[in-house]
Amino acid sequence: VQRITWDPIQAEKAGYKHFMLKEINEQPRAIRDTTLGRVSLDTGKVFLDNLAITPEEFRTANQITIAACGTSWHAGLAGKFMIERLARLPVDVDYASEYRYRDPIADPHAIGLLITQSGETADTLAAQAELIAKGSKTLAICNVVGAAITRKAAGTITTNAGPEIGVASTKAFTAQLTALFVLALHLAQVRGTISDAESLHLVDELSKLPGKVEDVLRSVDDQCQQLAKIFHNANDFLFLGRGVHYPIALEGALKLKEISYIHAEGYPAGEMKHGPNALIDEALPVVTIATKDPSDPSSVLKYEKTLSNIQEVTARSGRVIAIAIEGDEEIKHLVEHTIQIPQAAELLLPVLEVVPLQLLAYHIAVRRGCDVDQPRNLAKSVTVE
Amino acid sequence: VQRITWDPIQAEKAGYKHFMLKEINEQPRAIRDTTLGRVSLDTGKVFLDNLAITPEEFRTANQITIAACGTSWHAGLAGKFMIERLARLPVDVDYASEYRYRDPIADPHAIGLLITQSGETADTLAAQAELIAKGSKTLAICNVVGAAITRKAAGTITTNAGPEIGVASTKAFTAQLTALFVLALHLAQVRGTISDAESLHLVDELSKLPGKVEDVLRSVDDQCQQLAKIFHNANDFLFLGRGVHYPIALEGALKLKEISYIHAEGYPAGEMKHGPNALIDEALPVVTIATKDPSDPSSVLKYEKTLSNIQEVTARSGRVIAIAIEGDEEIKHLVEHTIQIPQAAELLLPVLEVVPLQLLAYHIAVRRGCDVDQPRNLAKSVTVE
Repeated sequence: VQRITWDPIQAEKAGYKHFMLKEINEQPRAIRDTTLGRVSLDTGKVFLDNLAITPEEFRTANQITIAACGTSWHAGLAGKFMIERLARLPVDVDYASEYRYRDPIADPHAIGLLITQSGETADTLAAQAELIAKGSKTLAICNVVGAAITRKAAGTITTNAGPEIGVASTKAFTAQLTALFVLALHLAQVRGTISDAESLHLVDELSKLPGKVEDVLRSVDDQCQQLAKIFHNANDFLFLGRGVHYPIALEGALKLKEISYIHAEGYPAGEMKHGPNALIDEALPVVTIATKDPSDPSSVLKYEKTLSNIQEVTARSGRVIAIAIEGDEEIKHLVEHTIQIPQAAELLLPVLEVVPLQLLAYHIAVRRGCDVDQPRNLAKSVTVE
Repeated sequence: VQRITWDPIQAEKAGYKHFMLKEINEQPRAIRDTTLGRVSLDTGKVFLDNLAITPEEFRTANQITIAACGTSWHAGLAGKFMIERLARLPVDVDYASEYRYRDPIADPHAIGLLITQSGETADTLAAQAELIAKGSKTLAICNVVGAAITRKAAGTITTNAGPEIGVASTKAFTAQLTALFVLALHLAQVRGTISDAESLHLVDELSKLPGKVEDVLRSVDDQCQQLAKIFHNANDFLFLGRGVHYPIALEGALKLKEISYIHAEGYPAGEMKHGPNALIDEALPVVTIATKDPSDPSSVLKYEKTLSNIQEVTARSGRVIAIAIEGDEEIKHLVEHTIQIPQAAELLLPVLEVVPLQLLAYHIAVRRGCDVDQPRNLAKSVTVE
């Protein structure tokens, strides 16, 4: 294990008004440091060291079982799309608090994957114990070297986000998404479900991600402040997305809920007709993730279906804030507000999409006078049930 | 296929103010008619006729994949607990609108299960087509004989709830839960994961369910009207539950959202500490399902954990409405309001729990002057994407 020592100065606010804003702005570095030394830009190969799981075990695995809580659970939901798409390995994602009491069906060929920023989350540790008792090896994605979860795991992918002080997780989340993408790529390579050319392409895309996050941080902050001015008095928000973008809708809603106390809820866009449409009126902001990767036909198809969902919202006078790709002129004509992010591979878009949602929640909470770094009723690490 | 002819008179309001209230009150009959002829009270055996899936295929199946939308998706989530617990067969539940675009991993030993009241839901039909294309046989749980979904299915379990007119589904939902319980019991018997004594016990419990629902309808309606008087002006509601009760929390929230336009959200109780706790203040009603089956240790354990969650809510001045078992004196001391339901087997409690949640939503919507049977922005059957 390579130990990373944290500089105490790094944990100061460094001129930012809140730790959360500092941590949002540290995401390019967090993503870079989570990638560093794990991928080869020359060959596209992924190296995950110190795993007590053999390539043969990865090859014969028939399922990955993810257990996590809160923001880490959202990362797990996104990871499901990454692993299923690249490695063609089914992934089951459960709340750790549910999994531990579920009496899950034993499957020694399932690999457990626990995701936790602190590595000390009580429910996630209990889910790990349950997985091990059922005969599964477990992997951990964790931000703290030497944390409890890593001691029982057959391997850990450390997210090198550095200490996270704000209760609402930001840089740990994008580092988790990065680690999950690296793991998905590794599984795909070991299992032979990806070509060398595709690996090279995705590793190249991954290497460009920190720079793109920097671009987003620069380009959307003013707009998020303006949107906060318009919408900070809203009683409710909806957040919509499809596919790998759906977990980001959930995460955007959770950020707003946690720090602004506005009741925000995430939904898969296709479910709107089955109930939530009833909430739509002229007072309801509906944040919709409507990005696409033009090189990926299934991404384009989901984008088109999302456009239909947007039209249903606007037809009912709902106020849509769309997260869209730079240069998408079509969507600008459909909605009131568009936040643009750069183009990226479908499975990496979530990392870019969540940044404006974090900033939107942040600026709304500041404008409402909330204690951003220490929201009411919440603790940073949930070490009790 | 046995065709059931519906009497047009049956579709009238029969003295009730709304179709929804009539349909809530028809649930004892809907549940009885969904059970009738499918179980033997003498032997505990379950008979599902006309399935083009052999017992051998049920024995060798390695997974059930459920796809559904809205209320039917909630039934599917509860069905997961029933099937995994009784038949020890892993169940994956997905939104039909997500499944159809997911490019799911082919597994010919997975059996697809589609749940839809109308049998014409566009996304659910598309999910069925995807399952069949991937080599799976499909079963349908459907309320309309001869509907589109049944024509491609290798077998259908018809819910005999009769025509449902109210847009917000009630009797179709409890009939779906009943059908899923019958299916879970059948799978358990075919796969040899249940003893004859346990089968007999559960069939006996199932046979008592319609009478218990009648008791609930009689005993809780006045109280739900009183609660509606107290809480109809709330801006938001939370609904909490654990295990098989969590989908009922989701369904309770959806009912309220659909017909009263109050922003209600369901959560697994264990997730509260990971974000939603921030919403709690003295204005927030938190409906918590805190039932238990004393003969089932894992049910009792989850109940105790739910009591801790309730105490966190009351410590933060949240206003708890608990759904609890008759005679539970402990919980009465903890919360402001307790709605009591009769004792039942853990996996059948959901059918009893949802009834007061339906009545609560109904009375709140009536008091707010909403169009209960035809809420804004929603259609009964979603036959387009």
